[in-house]
Amino acid sequence: MLSSISAREMIIHGDRYFHPGLSVDCVILGFYEGRLKVLLNKFTRLSNWRLPGGFILKDEHIDDAAARVLQQRTNLKDLYLKQFYTFGGSSRNNMDEFTGLSEFYQYSFSEESWLFQRFVTVAYLSLIDISKKSLPLGEIQNGSSVDWFDIHDLPKLGIDHNEIIKKALEFIKRVENIRSAMKSLLPEKFTLPELQLLYEIIQNEKFDRRNFRRKVLSLNVLEKLDEKKINGGAHKAPDLYSIRKL
Amino acid sequence: MLSSISAREMIIHGDRYFHPGLSVDCVILGFYEGRLKVLLNKFTRLSNWRLPGGFILKDEHIDDAAARVLQQRTNLKDLYLKQFYTFGGSSRNNMDEFTGLSEFYQYSFSEESWLFQRFVTVAYLSLIDISKKSLPLGEIQNGSSVDWFDIHDLPKLGIDHNEIIKKALEFIKRVENIRSAMKSLLPEKFTLPELQLLYEIIQNEKFDRRNFRRKVLSLNVLEKLDEKKINGGAHKAPDLYSIRKL
Repeated sequence: MLSSISAREMIIHGDRYFHPGLSVDCVILGFYEGRLKVLLNKFTRLSNWRLPGGFILKDEHIDDAAARVLQQRTNLKDLYLKQFYTFGGSSRNNMDEFTGLSEFYQYSFSEESWLFQRFVTVAYLSLIDISKKSLPLGEIQNGSSVDWFDIHDLPKLGIDHNEIIKKALEFIKRVENIRSAMKSLLPEKFTLPELQLLYEIIQNEKFDRRNFRRKVLSLNVLEKLDEKKINGGAHKAPDLYSIRKL
Repeated sequence: MLSSISAREMIIHGDRYFHPGLSVDCVILGFYEGRLKVLLNKFTRLSNWRLPGGFILKDEHIDDAAARVLQQRTNLKDLYLKQFYTFGGSSRNNMDEFTGLSEFYQYSFSEESWLFQRFVTVAYLSLIDISKKSLPLGEIQNGSSVDWFDIHDLPKLGIDHNEIIKKALEFIKRVENIRSAMKSLLPEKFTLPELQLLYEIIQNEKFDRRNFRRKVLSLNVLEKLDEKKINGGAHKAPDLYSIRKL
């Protein structure tokens, strides 16, 4: 099986194992430390951070490939991964990203190498409640690191991964998706200021506190709980809410 | 360019021109004669009807490929084609469909032929108001025919195309999509019975006329026009409505 193939073999002869010209990439979003963050991945021998992604085995469903690749790169598993868009630009390829590998693997890639051909990628999205998952951080395996990045303050990523993240944000901003995005990203019980902060980050816009409160309560999607958030501060403990089931 | 390549050359040596292992398929839906219909395509030398679809040129954006292929197969152009799902089952291939071609083209396909490999397909959806488009019917070019089929009464189609159409129907049934589906499929001015019929077809369920009327009017998405539908019958001319702009 695949685990017994060396990285060198995969890079040079990957076309023996993988579906040609097609990859999967995962946009994993989490809300913590008051920021909306995306999980990125870096191989020691590549210069740019990237979305956790990879190739599809010849006999593997693309959805299964997304789950497998995500676990290999980040140790995250059992996430609900939703296909949200397939990126198929005419000159989408890894040429700029992977040329540095040639020296390390002492192998001279030709332009005809399978790795340098055009790749279409199927992108998956998962929104996680970080209070329920242990966050992957640091080195995962064989020199592959993961870290969380503020979605509004990203470095230049490999290939078109900045564009893919932008498209994912547009996707969750859409009226029909934002409710389930809030539900997935927030802990089960939250305060109105926490909800407002996340909403502002997704919309990339500031709202007046009282207007926001009035508007969101009028939508009748929140349920006020019989609990308050325990805080050690001087302020009054804020009310906790949860999102009403449909 | 591609138009100068013979069908034989395309079938035998298509891998010289096309992105490997990837195709596009188009689900074109129209509402007419009181039925929701899907546009299908048949090549004389294949036994099953299929969705209009085809391959992606090596230097072509997948969205452009969908538009080009649709026009080639059906003469329809300038449609809004929306990517709605990518089908990537592990054993999705044309083996059963294309074996009959071997005899005609006097070429013995091997199992290694590019045409028989696994293909992932990116599916596109377009909902058309048939009052604004001339409907393609009959032979289009080189023995490729098109016809409209009732979505609830389809023959067995090639590969997994019945599944793709089912997924498209699920897509437009979703609460967030049904409003724009109605807007795209109905003529600009329509009667409540026409709206109810389309809604029943999409939901595959019958509704009581008065309940439907009360419910749909309470949603405040319809605008009653100052016109009635002209009919030659004995009944009272029915009111015309249009869908309110957001």
